[in-house]
Amino acid sequence: MNYKKLGGILGKIMIFEGVLMLFPLLVALIYRESLTNILSYVIPISALALIGALLQIPKPKREELYQKEAFALVAVVWIIMALFGAVPFVINKDIPNYVDAFFEITSGFTTTGASILNDVTALSHSSLFWRSLSHWIGGMGILVFILIFIPEGKDGSSMHLLRAESPGPQVGKITSKMKVTARILYLIYLGLTVIEVVLLMLDKPVAGHESEKFFYSLLTAFGTAGTGGFGFLPGSMELMNPFSQYVIAIFLILFGVNFALYYLLLIGKVKQVLKSTELKVYTVLMASSVGIIFLSLVTRFQAFPQTYTTEEAFRHSLFQVASIMTTTGYTTTDFAVWPMVATMVLIVAMIMGAMAGSTAGGIKVSRVAIAVKGIYVSVRKLINPRYVPKVKVEGKPLEEKTINGVFNFITFYFFILLGTVFLLSFDPINGATVAISSDAYPQGYTVTHGFLSNFSASIACLSNIGPGFEAVGPYASYAGYSAFSKILLSFVMLIGRLEILPVFVLFTPRTWKRS
Amino acid sequence: MNYKKLGGILGKIMIFEGVLMLFPLLVALIYRESLTNILSYVIPISALALIGALLQIPKPKREELYQKEAFALVAVVWIIMALFGAVPFVINKDIPNYVDAFFEITSGFTTTGASILNDVTALSHSSLFWRSLSHWIGGMGILVFILIFIPEGKDGSSMHLLRAESPGPQVGKITSKMKVTARILYLIYLGLTVIEVVLLMLDKPVAGHESEKFFYSLLTAFGTAGTGGFGFLPGSMELMNPFSQYVIAIFLILFGVNFALYYLLLIGKVKQVLKSTELKVYTVLMASSVGIIFLSLVTRFQAFPQTYTTEEAFRHSLFQVASIMTTTGYTTTDFAVWPMVATMVLIVAMIMGAMAGSTAGGIKVSRVAIAVKGIYVSVRKLINPRYVPKVKVEGKPLEEKTINGVFNFITFYFFILLGTVFLLSFDPINGATVAISSDAYPQGYTVTHGFLSNFSASIACLSNIGPGFEAVGPYASYAGYSAFSKILLSFVMLIGRLEILPVFVLFTPRTWKRS
Repeated sequence: MNYKKLGGILGKIMIFEGVLMLFPLLVALIYRESLTNILSYVIPISALALIGALLQIPKPKREELYQKEAFALVAVVWIIMALFGAVPFVINKDIPNYVDAFFEITSGFTTTGASILNDVTALSHSSLFWRSLSHWIGGMGILVFILIFIPEGKDGSSMHLLRAESPGPQVGKITSKMKVTARILYLIYLGLTVIEVVLLMLDKPVAGHESEKFFYSLLTAFGTAGTGGFGFLPGSMELMNPFSQYVIAIFLILFGVNFALYYLLLIGKVKQVLKSTELKVYTVLMASSVGIIFLSLVTRFQAFPQTYTTEEAFRHSLFQVASIMTTTGYTTTDFAVWPMVATMVLIVAMIMGAMAGSTAGGIKVSRVAIAVKGIYVSVRKLINPRYVPKVKVEGKPLEEKTINGVFNFITFYFFILLGTVFLLSFDPINGATVAISSDAYPQGYTVTHGFLSNFSASIACLSNIGPGFEAVGPYASYAGYSAFSKILLSFVMLIGRLEILPVFVLFTPRTWKRS
Repeated sequence: MNYKKLGGILGKIMIFEGVLMLFPLLVALIYRESLTNILSYVIPISALALIGALLQIPKPKREELYQKEAFALVAVVWIIMALFGAVPFVINKDIPNYVDAFFEITSGFTTTGASILNDVTALSHSSLFWRSLSHWIGGMGILVFILIFIPEGKDGSSMHLLRAESPGPQVGKITSKMKVTARILYLIYLGLTVIEVVLLMLDKPVAGHESEKFFYSLLTAFGTAGTGGFGFLPGSMELMNPFSQYVIAIFLILFGVNFALYYLLLIGKVKQVLKSTELKVYTVLMASSVGIIFLSLVTRFQAFPQTYTTEEAFRHSLFQVASIMTTTGYTTTDFAVWPMVATMVLIVAMIMGAMAGSTAGGIKVSRVAIAVKGIYVSVRKLINPRYVPKVKVEGKPLEEKTINGVFNFITFYFFILLGTVFLLSFDPINGATVAISSDAYPQGYTVTHGFLSNFSASIACLSNIGPGFEAVGPYASYAGYSAFSKILLSFVMLIGRLEILPVFVLFTPRTWKRS
């Protein structure tokens, strides 16, 4: 282990987090918040700057990073970011319990959007900003961001880092230079975010919150771009005007697209974009999911409590599918009480996620597509053992190695999912009655914290979505879980965000042995 | 496709099913049942004999079977067996609806034990016998049975058939001759069944059913040996005396062991048996599952309605783990209302199943063990790309190909599971309130048919268990599902019993093209 080099990079990232915290500090100053609120950022900023600077002092003997070091570093970086990122909430008493605060900011950085807060409106502006900003930074990747500013080695270190952090298996395809790639990705990301803010500003403000228009547009765009999903109004995006809801839905779908495709669009390769297997599958899945849910809401062949107009049914179907499939978690209505068909479409979307190379979580559409083709190949091989697969993905022949890697990933995903549900079953909350009040039932209703709560909480954290069903539905929160379950779910979010392996590399004793 | 040869084998199997039906016919005669009941067997026996004989007439030009033909044949055979096997229930009006009868007998042959009957006590003796006999035949395999009686080709046809039908990937290891292997397997199977019947006869009879002692012992043993699980008394095995419940639990565990190990025991290779990786994992999983459930029942750290003595808590824990992990489905108490921890242990056991080469369903312990080791290898490879795996299973180095095959299988398993839950979500039963009465609550209680019902029904059918949770719990039935869902679940049982691939080979158009 090249501890000095690793420490140096970690230190840079801590300084970077300190810089990031200047933004919520600025928000606290603008909104003239209390001295405690200002100190809640000044203190961690000072600590991060100091420790970060100290870590720069030892000079490494070796400049390059091995793959295992890169993977372990990525996991450490994300954990340290969350450990310090939680501090402001505790100091300013917005979330006095440290475990809760750690859960909340991990949920932010991993773009999960699961919250332990029962009432987000009680948060200060600076806290709301810090939560949503963490989505925007976490969506594209903390280390990817750093890569833009640190000199690129010739040794593949940056490549290792990028590989360890980026969602999907397609990093490095855009240009040969990592740094250029990272910059282009972030520029596209920034550009789309800005356009969304502009479009949201065109709408009339949320009734009763006229002065917050720009602030809310910014927070909404952060959560959309990072496919995070933290809300700032009661009922997530329910109070937003329909125009804004449509804008958000469309941008959610856009942020679920592989960013490499935007690069291809920018350089004029439209045909290549249209040929993308994953884009086709993504579009078909998105459209059919919206279609099925819309029909279930309109025909009412299974009972559910809300009454929607046709336009509302369409808007909510579009919005929820866009939000859940991109693993964001914004909501416009209480989908937890929708018919079973809608529930299942959303659960499948939760597990699947959006495209690789986007900011979304989940297994990813490309892996699902590869797995389905891989299964087809295995059936064909049974029919004719001498069958030579001629299956193509993205115009290239699908290699056995790729298929096997995907099967490996999916098996690992389901094992972790089952393991998480299993560990959550020990929580004392199980069997408890949880009160929920939502727009659909202003008088409130109760649910029992049962299997679906744990199952959907596990998927929602592993796929970085946020809300689940039943006792962790969109109008409920994760507050009822024990400290153990909250820490467990925080790690599950990290595992999901970093696509499983880095976190396991970190906790494998072998990583830390001299080799 | 060698239709004449395939038709010939199919015909032999139809005649064989006719012969099998002579046993319930005999039962009908012994118990002096009505003429309708007698005819309900005489008619299908005649039909099977006639069609079976006609299918022997065309003489095939080619004697051997290709692999795809073997796989397709196995699937066809099981479907035909079920189609004819359902007929008696319809004629004798024990199950007047044909779809229900098809579901019931498919559940029998696939050793699932899921039932659409709300009251098994209303069945005639002959129907009870036919249901349980189907478990005993289905457990070991219909074609394996046939192999004992038909001459063995030198062309690998029998090997293909055995491979397509046997649970687990280890067929053909015992002896070089398929026929000898099949005979040894069936002799061990028969031997264990007989011992169980003898032990059950040592117990005092079930109170109020003194005259049925031998009949019930036989049915119980059929269901245990095949790991099927059809009950014949109210509340499955609840009314059995504790001694019998212990006997059944122990025999369930024994029938979950790979039969190859019994062969090794018989020829004196005890050391080799004790070295078996899978046996060790099976024992540890079984013991820890019993331990966790027992503790959850004794400590009551999560509430549940029943009150058990310590002995009862132990007996029910042992029995339920043995029954569920071997994918049998016998029950001694209403485990559907147990604490969440117990529920999750059982759900994990349902997915996992028992050992390969036993009569149990599920993913199988050996595949789980291989997958876990495979995941370990992939993490190690990330840490050091030049890492050469030295992982062993059953004393042999674990090959990449084996690992990849297992990942492929598990991915397929979870996709089918999700797909089934998805299709079940369209059923109108969803959201309905289902009344359940059990020993724990003689006054009865109600549950809502929700996600857990569909999820556990899908696992229970795919892993060939039988009862699930909530609206398909041990004291409920599958009666409420629509005809579509029942047919779907029947195919899912077949997919589970034949380990997925044969059924897909059958439905791949490519199988039926000339090559």
